[in-house]
Amino acid sequence: MSLIQPRTLKGFRDLMPAQALRRSALVRTVEDVFQAHGYGPIDTPVLEYAEIIKGKMGGEATKELFEFTDKGGREVAMRNDLTVPLARYVAQHEGKLVFPFRRYHIGLVYRGERPQRGRAREFLQCDADLIGPVGAAADAEALIVMADVYAALDVGGVTLRVNDRRILNGLLETLGAADRAEPVLRALDKREKLGDETVRSEMRGVGLDDAAIDSVLAACTPGVDDEATLASLEALVGETEQGRAGIADLRTVRELFEAAGQRPDALRIDPSIARGLDYYTGIVVEAQLDELPDIGSVGGGGRYDDLAGLYTKSHMPGVGFTVGITRLMDALEALGREEETRCTTEALVTFPGAEHLTEAFAFAAALRAAGIASEVYPQRKKHGQQMRYADRRGVPFVFTRNEDGSYHGKRMADGETSTCADASAALTWIQKP
Amino acid sequence: MSLIQPRTLKGFRDLMPAQALRRSALVRTVEDVFQAHGYGPIDTPVLEYAEIIKGKMGGEATKELFEFTDKGGREVAMRNDLTVPLARYVAQHEGKLVFPFRRYHIGLVYRGERPQRGRAREFLQCDADLIGPVGAAADAEALIVMADVYAALDVGGVTLRVNDRRILNGLLETLGAADRAEPVLRALDKREKLGDETVRSEMRGVGLDDAAIDSVLAACTPGVDDEATLASLEALVGETEQGRAGIADLRTVRELFEAAGQRPDALRIDPSIARGLDYYTGIVVEAQLDELPDIGSVGGGGRYDDLAGLYTKSHMPGVGFTVGITRLMDALEALGREEETRCTTEALVTFPGAEHLTEAFAFAAALRAAGIASEVYPQRKKHGQQMRYADRRGVPFVFTRNEDGSYHGKRMADGETSTCADASAALTWIQKP
Repeated sequence: MSLIQPRTLKGFRDLMPAQALRRSALVRTVEDVFQAHGYGPIDTPVLEYAEIIKGKMGGEATKELFEFTDKGGREVAMRNDLTVPLARYVAQHEGKLVFPFRRYHIGLVYRGERPQRGRAREFLQCDADLIGPVGAAADAEALIVMADVYAALDVGGVTLRVNDRRILNGLLETLGAADRAEPVLRALDKREKLGDETVRSEMRGVGLDDAAIDSVLAACTPGVDDEATLASLEALVGETEQGRAGIADLRTVRELFEAAGQRPDALRIDPSIARGLDYYTGIVVEAQLDELPDIGSVGGGGRYDDLAGLYTKSHMPGVGFTVGITRLMDALEALGREEETRCTTEALVTFPGAEHLTEAFAFAAALRAAGIASEVYPQRKKHGQQMRYADRRGVPFVFTRNEDGSYHGKRMADGETSTCADASAALTWIQKP
Repeated sequence: MSLIQPRTLKGFRDLMPAQALRRSALVRTVEDVFQAHGYGPIDTPVLEYAEIIKGKMGGEATKELFEFTDKGGREVAMRNDLTVPLARYVAQHEGKLVFPFRRYHIGLVYRGERPQRGRAREFLQCDADLIGPVGAAADAEALIVMADVYAALDVGGVTLRVNDRRILNGLLETLGAADRAEPVLRALDKREKLGDETVRSEMRGVGLDDAAIDSVLAACTPGVDDEATLASLEALVGETEQGRAGIADLRTVRELFEAAGQRPDALRIDPSIARGLDYYTGIVVEAQLDELPDIGSVGGGGRYDDLAGLYTKSHMPGVGFTVGITRLMDALEALGREEETRCTTEALVTFPGAEHLTEAFAFAAALRAAGIASEVYPQRKKHGQQMRYADRRGVPFVFTRNEDGSYHGKRMADGETSTCADASAALTWIQKP
């Protein structure tokens, strides 16, 4: 019989044991932080009615969907984010949920067929949202949870670059251009990549004059510090209600952030932050690693007015953010801060011969009962081969039965050895400082 | 604009927050046990080439697949188990893996279009396997890990019903019917449901005489205790090598199981256990809850000779098992042993008015830093409404700022109250025995 070539689809990949272990530990850390703030998990299906997933999606995004007709004739699609499923979920279960509703969701999402090299078509998305309340307390909470997540991950300093959509809207209102917020945002989004001149010409194209464009660009440029930035923004938004509310809320958010014990300089008011998604209506945030700014945003989010308007008449404002699991894994690797652990086993008991196997099993079980992850080498092999196995896997301690029934312990890192009368002696040796 | 009906596909479901929290805690417990035994996670894509997923799958199973042509023209399918992906994985990455290879994999699998009522089309599969070694030590390890998993989950006593395929094969060899192992197994599989007469008539159909059938049925009936069972099996398998090896290994497995500190009666030799899957070649096991035997098996597995023969010429024997996450969740619910936790928040600080909000944020952060999951109610609402929120979510402690700056603490379970000067006093009160 000819063999089937073992391979994965383009854009899909396996995780090797060490990678999977690192990701699993990272996800656990993130979940612990979420739960410490009262956020609990939910789960939704990977596969949904295509109608739900598509919602008001544009044609470009639709091209990326994995969609098909199932064997029951239903038009279905694999989800491409966790926001649409969240919107569907809160609309469907509104009566059973308790609001303010704090939830996190860590799940796989699927985006296919874009030409970028190396782009993952399946990846783990990690979102947290607080749905219901409006105002600075909720916004500040989101930023504090974000900051706590990064602090727990040991990725070095992280700066949350924060802005509020209402400030630019207020400015456009003073300029008599409130109806052009969308094209202006779209133009600004290209500023970093294409430079001011391109942005100016796009804005001229939607009828802004040069003075107005100067104001807009000034309003999207951070000052020397947050106070300077806010003062300059205050002058630009004038008396507009939304502009003043945006600025006042940023001040409150900053105060609450510090009150919660966060480093003040971990939050920076940065009016250049726009975030493309058009459903943000208030605060917006992007997280950047201080040591690896070029890796790009490692998370972000913002406030939205209306999460689930496609599915329910209930008005559901909220604030939420995503944590970039994959990019954080890359960052930890680049920083050399990834956990050294290649396996969870702390102690290997070598195969002692069939006649002493029960004893080896008891020895390993005793270590395990004391919290030391342990395994017995599960079949007869040359001792050297078993030691190579321990070495390749990165097991820190190896115990081999001596003829007198004691165990010869070896610490693989430095070769230190010890003769241990029993599991309890082995434990003492392993745990000595 | 008309609304889209928020709904999930038939056979797919959302997890409500309390369910998702329970499942997440359960999965974590299982992972902890796996890791304590040196098993690490791997991950593989949900979507694979259909050719890989189908392998040598029969037509019936194929009907259950979610398969389609992707937008790049590839024939793809969503995985319907984690065994085929494991086989593909070890074949593809053989050179990078360290053998003996212990891995676990917890992931979603998809099976559609079977008519059974209420059958889930998406569910979480949880498998552990030890690949490479052959023999009783590896088999015993698998059973010990299984027993440790159930012990950690607090589902009451669990019995592992264990058999070895080689015993029946040995008996059939003595009967000159070694070539009819498959139809005999298929017939035996129906014994519990259809009764001995149906089974006898099927066996007659493949040429066994009544004396042979009597032997087969006797060999599939447990004795009063394991010793009696083994003695009776020994008589039946005669001198056949495989029969004797199966019995000898069961004896060793039982010894090692006990040596590792497991309750002896948690393992029962039960020759009626067959397990349908035709790829098992040695030990087979099914786990049954002592308090809820009727709920069916909550896990099972066995030894196989050749995991990845479709993809590689390397011979990969192993032993593995699956833990029935969904059925265990049902069992915990039926036993009333599910965790009471409806949310992770331990302390809610009510909204104190905008002028004291920074103080409330500091109070909650101090509790959190001491390990108490805490949240601030994130917007101004009537106090009664905030208390109802705490009650509906099941938050155990609520703190409300008094006018003098102290906090009024309330324990929701019994209504006990305490006036706490600050977060540190609140912490002492929460943690008092």
